[in-house]
Amino acid sequence: MISPPADTCCLVVTCPDRHGTVAAISAAIAQLGANIVGSAQFSTEPEDGTFFLRAEFHLPGLTDERLEQVRADIAALAREREMEWRLSVLSKRKRVAIFVSREEHCLLDLLWRVHHDDLHMDVVTVVSNHPDLREEVERFGVPFVHIPVTRDTKPEAEQRQIDLLAGDVDFVVMARYMQILTGDFLDRIGCPVINIHHSFLPAFVGAEPYAQAHRRGVKLIGATAHYATEDLDEGPIIEQETSRVTHRHGPDYLAYIGRDLERVVLARAVNWHLQDRVIVHENRTIVFN
Amino acid sequence: MISPPADTCCLVVTCPDRHGTVAAISAAIAQLGANIVGSAQFSTEPEDGTFFLRAEFHLPGLTDERLEQVRADIAALAREREMEWRLSVLSKRKRVAIFVSREEHCLLDLLWRVHHDDLHMDVVTVVSNHPDLREEVERFGVPFVHIPVTRDTKPEAEQRQIDLLAGDVDFVVMARYMQILTGDFLDRIGCPVINIHHSFLPAFVGAEPYAQAHRRGVKLIGATAHYATEDLDEGPIIEQETSRVTHRHGPDYLAYIGRDLERVVLARAVNWHLQDRVIVHENRTIVFN
Amino acid sequence: MISPPADTCCLVVTCPDRHGTVAAISAAIAQLGANIVGSAQFSTEPEDGTFFLRAEFHLPGLTDERLEQVRADIAALAREREMEWRLSVLSKRKRVAIFVSREEHCLLDLLWRVHHDDLHMDVVTVVSNHPDLREEVERFGVPFVHIPVTRDTKPEAEQRQIDLLAGDVDFVVMARYMQILTGDFLDRIGCPVINIHHSFLPAFVGAEPYAQAHRRGVKLIGATAHYATEDLDEGPIIEQETSRVTHRHGPDYLAYIGRDLERVVLARAVNWHLQDRVIVHENRTIVFN
Amino acid sequence: MISPPADTCCLVVTCPDRHGTVAAISAAIAQLGANIVGSAQFSTEPEDGTFFLRAEFHLPGLTDERLEQVRADIAALAREREMEWRLSVLSKRKRVAIFVSREEHCLLDLLWRVHHDDLHMDVVTVVSNHPDLREEVERFGVPFVHIPVTRDTKPEAEQRQIDLLAGDVDFVVMARYMQILTGDFLDRIGCPVINIHHSFLPAFVGAEPYAQAHRRGVKLIGATAHYATEDLDEGPIIEQETSRVTHRHGPDYLAYIGRDLERVVLARAVNWHLQDRVIVHENRTIVFN
Repeated sequence: MISPPADTCCLVVTCPDRHGTVAAISAAIAQLGANIVGSAQFSTEPEDGTFFLRAEFHLPGLTDERLEQVRADIAALAREREMEWRLSVLSKRKRVAIFVSREEHCLLDLLWRVHHDDLHMDVVTVVSNHPDLREEVERFGVPFVHIPVTRDTKPEAEQRQIDLLAGDVDFVVMARYMQILTGDFLDRIGCPVINIHHSFLPAFVGAEPYAQAHRRGVKLIGATAHYATEDLDEGPIIEQETSRVTHRHGPDYLAYIGRDLERVVLARAVNWHLQDRVIVHENRTIVFN
Repeated sequence: MISPPADTCCLVVTCPDRHGTVAAISAAIAQLGANIVGSAQFSTEPEDGTFFLRAEFHLPGLTDERLEQVRADIAALAREREMEWRLSVLSKRKRVAIFVSREEHCLLDLLWRVHHDDLHMDVVTVVSNHPDLREEVERFGVPFVHIPVTRDTKPEAEQRQIDLLAGDVDFVVMARYMQILTGDFLDRIGCPVINIHHSFLPAFVGAEPYAQAHRRGVKLIGATAHYATEDLDEGPIIEQETSRVTHRHGPDYLAYIGRDLERVVLARAVNWHLQDRVIVHENRTIVFN
Repeated sequence: MISPPADTCCLVVTCPDRHGTVAAISAAIAQLGANIVGSAQFSTEPEDGTFFLRAEFHLPGLTDERLEQVRADIAALAREREMEWRLSVLSKRKRVAIFVSREEHCLLDLLWRVHHDDLHMDVVTVVSNHPDLREEVERFGVPFVHIPVTRDTKPEAEQRQIDLLAGDVDFVVMARYMQILTGDFLDRIGCPVINIHHSFLPAFVGAEPYAQAHRRGVKLIGATAHYATEDLDEGPIIEQETSRVTHRHGPDYLAYIGRDLERVVLARAVNWHLQDRVIVHENRTIVFN
Repeated sequence: MISPPADTCCLVVTCPDRHGTVAAISAAIAQLGANIVGSAQFSTEPEDGTFFLRAEFHLPGLTDERLEQVRADIAALAREREMEWRLSVLSKRKRVAIFVSREEHCLLDLLWRVHHDDLHMDVVTVVSNHPDLREEVERFGVPFVHIPVTRDTKPEAEQRQIDLLAGDVDFVVMARYMQILTGDFLDRIGCPVINIHHSFLPAFVGAEPYAQAHRRGVKLIGATAHYATEDLDEGPIIEQETSRVTHRHGPDYLAYIGRDLERVVLARAVNWHLQDRVIVHENRTIVFN
């Protein structure tokens, strides 16, 4: 229901902050005959920091050939100014694999939003270490692959996942996948991985976080979506949200509220990622939303 | 405590959205020897809409002379591209008059933030149609002017306000000033006027809004800061916030919650206005916050 | 996943506020051999107002016979003290009909929560004035009844709805049902009807509210769940929530945010209604959540 | 501006959850000739948990003598049913000492609310380990006592604080007092101590939390009010709130947002404590707000 605009490219740039960078990029886009329809910039420091830019520009009648030329022009500029960059066509659907264990709330919420075109992406595969959700997934016409994982079989399991997905997907979403992905896997999959988990103020380490939160009597429950890194739950944060609870709410209800938050926060993070609104810098994100 | 960066200008532009606008503005800023440290743009439409830009740029060792030249350069560009624009120096304190009636919560909150340098502005005068708050205001070393207003004396009262302020202040804040400013006044004062008021879902028209909200059993209380226009409470919205209430809260408590909201929402709106983050377009705002 | 406790009754009382009411009710519950596990009370005034009480009490090994006796005891007390009351068994699933038009987000969210036992109710039927959502509904094993409504056929359509549902359901949920239910229908259906709709600060009357909200540049989008009354969207409010938007968000995105809010707000309202936490008094609600 | 009702007592009870407790308490209140105007109860478990009750009741023409008798009657009941209890008269102003270091935002917010009768309490003294805020405090007609604290003089400093306050105040508020109160002090002061501090998701341990939060790119800033215990920042939570931030906000701005949150969260916690709405149980709170 929310269609990305046609013939619209999105350029994302990270580079050292030097005089004239915006002018140079803007001039390059103008020379393409394109019109910038939205743009945001950010510098970490007034002088000599890192500079970030996201620009959406409209190129009426965009063809593949034309796109190649655009890429070549930007590449030339990038070499000159030490820019890291990426260019995406917003109307092109990104390909995603969703990893899940047994809890279906995040998975189904994503499938549903895709089904109703609220998330502009193709779910290539759902991968699970449990067979439970096959039927729910296949209902949406999405392939479901069960890859069991035990402590002993983890390397083979990750190898199967890599064989299945590497090179074929633009990003991976961990929609309550209760296994830690190894640094080795993250390297080899070669694309961003988005994860979602509960958060509290203060944080609770260890098992049964909702029971811990209940014993401490927290008044807010939270959820955080972030990019997965080797340090579990320590990757760059994309989005967070909290919701109010009271002493009347037992651990089950806290978890229920947590699920509602996780659905909404993950959907926002995926949406912004799809629209190339998120740039990772060191261990944090710039989110041009 | 929050100091604006030194030697930093803020350029705000509104113009028809045409190819190359960003490039032209960026090139002009680069030619000044300035470095863009933050910038945001927005277009109302992919093609042929209205384009808005706010750019903060750093000009080390900025002098008045230099600033004049910067203004001249931008003015030349503006003529060429039909740009409306304004340029401010962020470290320069804006001059403000605060209008108030009897309720002091918004007024004192602003004076306090100014006192602790959380709002970078000079309060030139507090104008009130009641004498009650003189002592509180003068404690902060701010002049207090009592200008009574009755139905009959309104024209003279507005004339006195104009005589006192026109040309001397950069903007006016109505911090619970319970008089309607006429369209004539708004024209003649010649600067933006920010107002704050309670808001509900749904809205309640007429007297005693908190009592009405209580009778209806609303679950959220809100506050809205907006630019004043001749249509009372119908001007472009700058900021809004809501807070949760329950059936246990009587009209007095709803009003208390409302006051807390009004303080925070008005302070945010004033802060963004001070930093030139707000652009009015038709009856709405672009807020580059 | 959230199971209501077994053998637990919920008593809800509204009565004139007189000395000794709580003592009398508590004594009656104690005499039943029951233990009050949660209770809340509220009076509109310190003296001579209206008094509201909700008490959950545990009756181990509760039988139908026993329940009859409990009801008889409470009825006797109620006559004595002019109490309006209702008693429900929380583990007993309530029966609900859902009305919908074409927008599926609220409907599917409810069906899904029921499917995963997050809402403890039986969806008896989905009634729609359009045929579009039949397949989605039947997937959940829920009957779908298409009852078209035109201006001319409205009386017959409402008659068909009454024939289908009156006496068979405990309440009705309008999950984006874009028809106004007449006062006559509300009288004859004889059970509460919960509705959900978007809300703004300020409110926007008439067609295309999200387009209006966009033109006005609102910074918050809201949703309100309320009991339906003859006055459209004017019934007692059960729950409200808002979410932040910016100038970058077009009417489509505002509507998307609105849908997310509507799902969450409606699910909360239905859950509280299921747990008998909501009492209507004049045009407002007491929500013991 | 928010006056507590006259002649109104508040009874707060914690006891083992047994059949008939509510009935017994309610009967006792009824026998006093009092009318319960608001009441809330909560049990930790359906059976054999801990039971909490807060009841406000109206006793027209309440005298000291009468109050003594009320206390005696409740004490008798309490012995019988193993109840811990406290009884307060809501219109009686509680006496409070505020501890502060150099940051004035929480302190001044409290003094201001007291000045405008939004917090119904008497500030007996402000104690600070720095002399900076004397003038601001004395402006409100409140005594300011400077008690310097160094590592070596901490025992004597705490002794001076105890000499000054013990027995004379109903509770203490740490309004950004940057010293840890020892367990010994907390024992000897003999009254509740409320503290406020920043919170994040996740938590950041150590110095410069806002700088850490900024480096991690958090999207929410929070504040928590809790009762002080020997374990720093680990006491029972009274209230929490969060506010949204973005990558554009530097550490200074995060701290500014944090100050606004701290003011509001601390004022709510103090207000609920004043109204005897908070019960501590193990390491959490029951808040009947």
